Amino acid sequence: VVSLCVIAGGVGAARLLRGAQDVVVGPSLTAIVNVADDDVISGLSISPDLDTVVYTCAEAIDPDRGWGLADETWRAMESQRRYTDSAGRSDVGWFNLGDRDLGTHLYRSARLARGATLSEVTAEIAAAWGLSMRVVPVSDDAIATRLVTDEGEIAFQDYFVRLQHGVEVHGVSFAGAMTATAAPGVLDAIAAAEVIIIAPSNPIVSIGPVLAVPGVRDALVARRDDTVAISGIIGGKALKGPADRLLVELGHESSAVGVARLYAEFAATLVVDDVDAGLADAVEATGMRCVVAPTIMSTRADAAALTSVCIDAAGGG
Amino acid sequence: VVSLCVIAGGVGAARLLRGAQDVVVGPSLTAIVNVADDDVISGLSISPDLDTVVYTCAEAIDPDRGWGLADETWRAMESQRRYTDSAGRSDVGWFNLGDRDLGTHLYRSARLARGATLSEVTAEIAAAWGLSMRVVPVSDDAIATRLVTDEGEIAFQDYFVRLQHGVEVHGVSFAGAMTATAAPGVLDAIAAAEVIIIAPSNPIVSIGPVLAVPGVRDALVARRDDTVAISGIIGGKALKGPADRLLVELGHESSAVGVARLYAEFAATLVVDDVDAGLADAVEATGMRCVVAPTIMSTRADAAALTSVCIDAAGGG
Repeated sequence: VVSLCVIAGGVGAARLLRGAQDVVVGPSLTAIVNVADDDVISGLSISPDLDTVVYTCAEAIDPDRGWGLADETWRAMESQRRYTDSAGRSDVGWFNLGDRDLGTHLYRSARLARGATLSEVTAEIAAAWGLSMRVVPVSDDAIATRLVTDEGEIAFQDYFVRLQHGVEVHGVSFAGAMTATAAPGVLDAIAAAEVIIIAPSNPIVSIGPVLAVPGVRDALVARRDDTVAISGIIGGKALKGPADRLLVELGHESSAVGVARLYAEFAATLVVDDVDAGLADAVEATGMRCVVAPTIMSTRADAAALTSVCIDAAGGG
Repeated sequence: VVSLCVIAGGVGAARLLRGAQDVVVGPSLTAIVNVADDDVISGLSISPDLDTVVYTCAEAIDPDRGWGLADETWRAMESQRRYTDSAGRSDVGWFNLGDRDLGTHLYRSARLARGATLSEVTAEIAAAWGLSMRVVPVSDDAIATRLVTDEGEIAFQDYFVRLQHGVEVHGVSFAGAMTATAAPGVLDAIAAAEVIIIAPSNPIVSIGPVLAVPGVRDALVARRDDTVAISGIIGGKALKGPADRLLVELGHESSAVGVARLYAEFAATLVVDDVDAGLADAVEATGMRCVVAPTIMSTRADAAALTSVCIDAAGGG
């Protein structure tokens, strides 16, 4: 049994972690999760990536939507829409929260209001869903991804949900990151894990803010030989979300090679999909070792297999 | 057509206003509503009395519970309970919010977070429910009823919901009231209405905080001849809630006479229930005129009739 630490964003990381549970059991599996998508919506503290990881690993995610809970209803949102229409405000109610999902946000908001830290609340939520893995926010401090667009600087959920990431991005920053402290256990988990995986999440807005928390990037650099990244860019495209466009808009290459250039400093190995086998030489030219494997995780078994590929590839394979 | 202003708490006032809509139409009917029960629960701004007034007047209240919306579901609360149990915290999740009701709280919280005032949001909510009457919070500033109990000073919702008003109260205060400003329209409505009714709400914790907002009591004193109060104490008992016990615990008499002593300064007339006809002389000894009428509002027609009794009684009857 190996101890494994996964640097995680939302959907892609959650899919990997779902299968990783079958390879690394119990608290030997730690997910360090992005919090820069977190926001306060209508007074409620939401943590999209943390919830996606927990719900997915608990087999409770809605498989069709890819976010939120299965067996969901939308009574609160339908009720809220009555008022949105009346007031003629389009900026209230664009954020969709299912009724069951609201229970999570209500609990988190109540606990935070009473002084609990986000990592404490997250541990409680993960335990309530029966997870034995550790799910840890990268920081208990607020970090907020800000995107510079033609309409000015906007918040992440504005970009991702309200605008459906349909606008060009000229710059990205992570407000609060520089003064944030890594949450308890984060740096220790990176230092102690036998293998570290950078999940196939968005390199810019999911992995980027995790790296921006003081200490995290250095901790990974110190573990470079044991750190394996998985490219979330397959055949030049992101499976889901705006990673491909964001990379290009910010001057990077939307390919496994572009990902390698971003990760080479702190990860010795990049796992690229079979369709990108032809990029292996270009990846290795960045200083990373390239491993070619199936990376599309349609099933839990796919994710377990990909986890094993990464573990085998670490430390020289 | 007369213009009518009703000083309102929650359930009792809402029942009166429901019928008052059939007597005084459109914006000639103004409800000035207590906000000292308002609280922030799990990050959401709740306004119990405002919502009870709106839901009741819109025929949308749950008739059995007496609060919240009819046709309600409880998915968010059921979901939240998963976490409450896991964390072993009994103080999270004791406040029951239905899924449809949550839509109202989400809307209000979002609008307040964006800088709207409570009176603006309340007008939007009332309009969305199709009300033509004006529903106005007594103040846009936060006012919080605090109750001194054996376990120290507690918040109103702690007392009312968590403890089911089952503890003795040694004192009551309205934090923020002294520095609060009456909301736009409040003092004008009292000054301009032909008749003012003090609804049969809890004199201590519903009417009390409305009177505590600077200017309101004086505005009523100036309109004493046209102000008619309805005793919410019938045969010595409150129909609902802790008004009878609170009166006694705070040194008042739990009777229509006790109510008269509290209201005589600013209301010329007290309407008491038929069962309290024998108290008429004692009521008049306080300086109020006493009108005896049926005050239990089982139906909308009962409430309309009681409204007419009050209007007829104002200004000398």
